Amino acid sequence: MKGVMRPVNIKINENFKKMKQSYLFSEIGKRVRMFSQQHPDAKIIRLGIGDVTLPLTASVIEAMRKAVEEMGEKSTFRGYAPDFGYDFLRKAISDNYARMSVDIPADEIYVSDGAKSDVGNIVDILGSNEVLIPDPVYPVYLDSNIMSGNHVTFISANAQNGFLPLPDENIPKRGYVIYLCSPNNPTGAVYNREQLKVWVDFALETGSLIIFDSAYEAYIKGDYPHSIYEIEGARECAVEICSFSKTAGFTGTRCAWSVVPANLEASGVRLKSLWERRQTTKYNGVPYVIQRAAEAALSEKGHAECLELVDYYMANAAVIAELLTRKGIWFTGGVSSPYIWLKCPNGMSSWDFFDYLLNEVQVVGTPGEGFGEEGKSYFRLTSFGSREDTEEAVRRLERIL
Amino acid sequence: MKGVMRPVNIKINENFKKMKQSYLFSEIGKRVRMFSQQHPDAKIIRLGIGDVTLPLTASVIEAMRKAVEEMGEKSTFRGYAPDFGYDFLRKAISDNYARMSVDIPADEIYVSDGAKSDVGNIVDILGSNEVLIPDPVYPVYLDSNIMSGNHVTFISANAQNGFLPLPDENIPKRGYVIYLCSPNNPTGAVYNREQLKVWVDFALETGSLIIFDSAYEAYIKGDYPHSIYEIEGARECAVEICSFSKTAGFTGTRCAWSVVPANLEASGVRLKSLWERRQTTKYNGVPYVIQRAAEAALSEKGHAECLELVDYYMANAAVIAELLTRKGIWFTGGVSSPYIWLKCPNGMSSWDFFDYLLNEVQVVGTPGEGFGEEGKSYFRLTSFGSREDTEEAVRRLERIL
Repeated sequence: MKGVMRPVNIKINENFKKMKQSYLFSEIGKRVRMFSQQHPDAKIIRLGIGDVTLPLTASVIEAMRKAVEEMGEKSTFRGYAPDFGYDFLRKAISDNYARMSVDIPADEIYVSDGAKSDVGNIVDILGSNEVLIPDPVYPVYLDSNIMSGNHVTFISANAQNGFLPLPDENIPKRGYVIYLCSPNNPTGAVYNREQLKVWVDFALETGSLIIFDSAYEAYIKGDYPHSIYEIEGARECAVEICSFSKTAGFTGTRCAWSVVPANLEASGVRLKSLWERRQTTKYNGVPYVIQRAAEAALSEKGHAECLELVDYYMANAAVIAELLTRKGIWFTGGVSSPYIWLKCPNGMSSWDFFDYLLNEVQVVGTPGEGFGEEGKSYFRLTSFGSREDTEEAVRRLERIL
Repeated sequence: MKGVMRPVNIKINENFKKMKQSYLFSEIGKRVRMFSQQHPDAKIIRLGIGDVTLPLTASVIEAMRKAVEEMGEKSTFRGYAPDFGYDFLRKAISDNYARMSVDIPADEIYVSDGAKSDVGNIVDILGSNEVLIPDPVYPVYLDSNIMSGNHVTFISANAQNGFLPLPDENIPKRGYVIYLCSPNNPTGAVYNREQLKVWVDFALETGSLIIFDSAYEAYIKGDYPHSIYEIEGARECAVEICSFSKTAGFTGTRCAWSVVPANLEASGVRLKSLWERRQTTKYNGVPYVIQRAAEAALSEKGHAECLELVDYYMANAAVIAELLTRKGIWFTGGVSSPYIWLKCPNGMSSWDFFDYLLNEVQVVGTPGEGFGEEGKSYFRLTSFGSREDTEEAVRRLERIL
C-alpha cells in the first residue's frame, strides 16, 4: 500500500490556503541552496537571516557546564520544570527590568523557548479580533493571524514617517490587537518615549491590546525606551515579548519570555490566566540546562559580556553604513539596531535585488517584500556576520553598487 | 495608575471558558503545596505526575558536555537549527524506527520540544472536525480540542474492554480525528497488533486521521506494536507523536518528535506541508545541545542505557503490583507501562482517595477523574519514583489499604 495517496476525509484549517506558500526565511534558504548546488565552489556570505555568529559567552558556557553535570547526578537531577519557568530565572528577568527602572513582578513573567513561539501562540488565547500590523514588519505577526482567520489592517511604515507609524486619525476608534516592534525588525527604526506614549494612549482610549516585541532592546543607543512598561499606562494595555536570541546569542540555544501583567483583563477574564492555561496545556517549558544559561546571561558579568557581543555586531553595522553613505544609498537602522534597511538602487524590486546580489557577489540579504508590501523596494542587511565576512561583503558590494 | 483594572475591549477565545479551571497536574501541585505549608515536616512521596527521577545517562551527559564546548567556540558555534531538526537527529530517529523494522524516512520526522507541544499544536492545522477521544486518557487531547471549539465524542475505556476500546458499531461511519495512546496513559493498557489493525482499518474505511501517541513505547514487554506504522495502512491514516521524556529521562531536558507521512493528504493538501508551515511560522526548534543529547540517547550505547532506566522503573512497578495483588485491589498496567491503574478501594471517588492518601500517608498519586469521567473511581500510581521512595510508599500504603 506504500506510496498510494488515499486522502483522509477530515477538515483542515482552510486559513492555511490564504498564506504565502512558504515562510520568508525558508524561501531564502531554498534559493541559496539552489545557487550553492549550481556553484559548489562559491563562497556565500550570509547577511540575510538575523542569525548570530559569535559563540556563547564565558558565563553562559560555565553555567551550562555546571547544569549538565547536575543533570547527570541523581541528587541534583531535575525533571519537569515549573510550568512558567524556574523561580531563579523569572527573578533574574524581573531584576533585569529593575535595571531599566521598570517594576515587573516575577509572577508576570513567562519563560518560553522563543519570542517566535510566544508571538505565534498568543493568538490561541484571543478571539477573532481586528488586528493592526505595521507594514513592513516581522512576518510572524501577520502569518499567525492569517492562520487563525483574523482580519488584519496594515499601518503603513514608510520613508515619510521614518518607518515609525503612529495611530492614524482614519483608524476607527475601537479595540484592536496591535503589534509593535521596537527597535524594529526589519527597518531598525526605534520609537522614542513620546511616540510610544501616543500608542499607549491610543490603546487605553480604544481598549486595544498592544503586543510589544522588544527582542532587539539590547541594541538601543541613547534615551529610547527598552520596554513598553517604561510608558505610563502600559500595564493596562500591553503584553511584552522579549528574547535571549539576539542579546545573548541564543538563536540556537532557545530562551525567551513574555510579560502578561496581572492588570490586563478582557471579557471578564485576566489574560494572565488564559496564557497560563494555554501554556500548561500545550507546553512543557524550557530545558533546565538552558534556563541556567539564560540566568547566567543576566548576571552582572553575563550582562556585561552580552553588551560586548552587541558592540561587536554594531561595529559591523558601522562598516555597512559607511559604504551605503559613501554610495549615496538611502537607509535607516544600524544605530540602535543590528539591521540596516536600504532602498534598492536603480528602482530594483527587492527580490530582484536579492537575486542580483546572490548571483553577482554571493551576498545574501533579505528582500523587503518578505516583510510586507511597503518593503517591495527595500532590502535588509544584518550586522550579525563576522567582522571578516562583513568587510568582505562590503568589498564585494563596493564593486557593484 | 498601577493596580487599576481597566478591561481591554477585545475578544478573547471564549472556548477557554468551557475548560476546567486548571490543568490536572497544576491542581495536584496546588493541593500538595497547600498540604506542605500546613505540614512543613511531612515527607511527601510523589507517585503522581509521571516525572522521572533517575539522572541522564552517561552517553547523554557526554554528548551534552561536548555540545556545550562547541557552543563556546566560534568555529563550532551553532545559530538557528534547521527548521525541523538537525539531519543527524532526524536520521537517528529514522534509524531507531528501522530497529523496529519500520521504514520512516528522515524527512517525515519533525523534531520538537515535547509530545505535549505537538499534541497541542497539531490542532492548529486541522479544521473543525468531530474528534474521538478515549475516556480516560491524557488530558491534553481533550483540552487542546476544547480550546479550538471542536466537538468531542468520548469512547469509553473501562474494565469490561480492558481499557482498550475499539471502534463501536454505533459510531457513524465518517471521518474523525481519533486520538490513541498505547501503552496508555493513564491506564497502562497496551493494544496488540490485531486491535490496532481494527483501528487502522476503521480509519482507512471512514477517512479518519489517527493521532497516535507512542510516548511510552520503550516500556513494552512482549510482542506488542511499538509504532502504529507496524500496522499495514497506517501511513495513509496516522500521525505518530513520540518523546524522549520517559525513554531517556528527558522530562526536564525536552525533546520529542512527530512523524507526518508524505502520503497523508486531506482537502487536497498534504498534512506534511501544513505541519511544516505551522512549525516554521510559530516555532524555532530544539536547542543544539539538546538535539545532540537526544542523538546520543538513540546510539547503540545510549539505547542500552535507556533500557536500564526502563528496567529500574519497571522493578518499582513490580513492587507496587505485589502490594495491590496481595491486598486484592483490582488494577491494570505495570507490565508494559510505568503506570498502574487501580480501582479505588471501598467505593471511594478518585479525588477523595487522592486526599485520603495525601492526608493519611503523604503519598501523592493521580486521581483517575483527571483523565475523564470513566476514571472517577480509579487512581494512577507511577513507578518513576526512586526504589527507596517506592518501597517506603508501599510500606505506608500497606498500613491503610
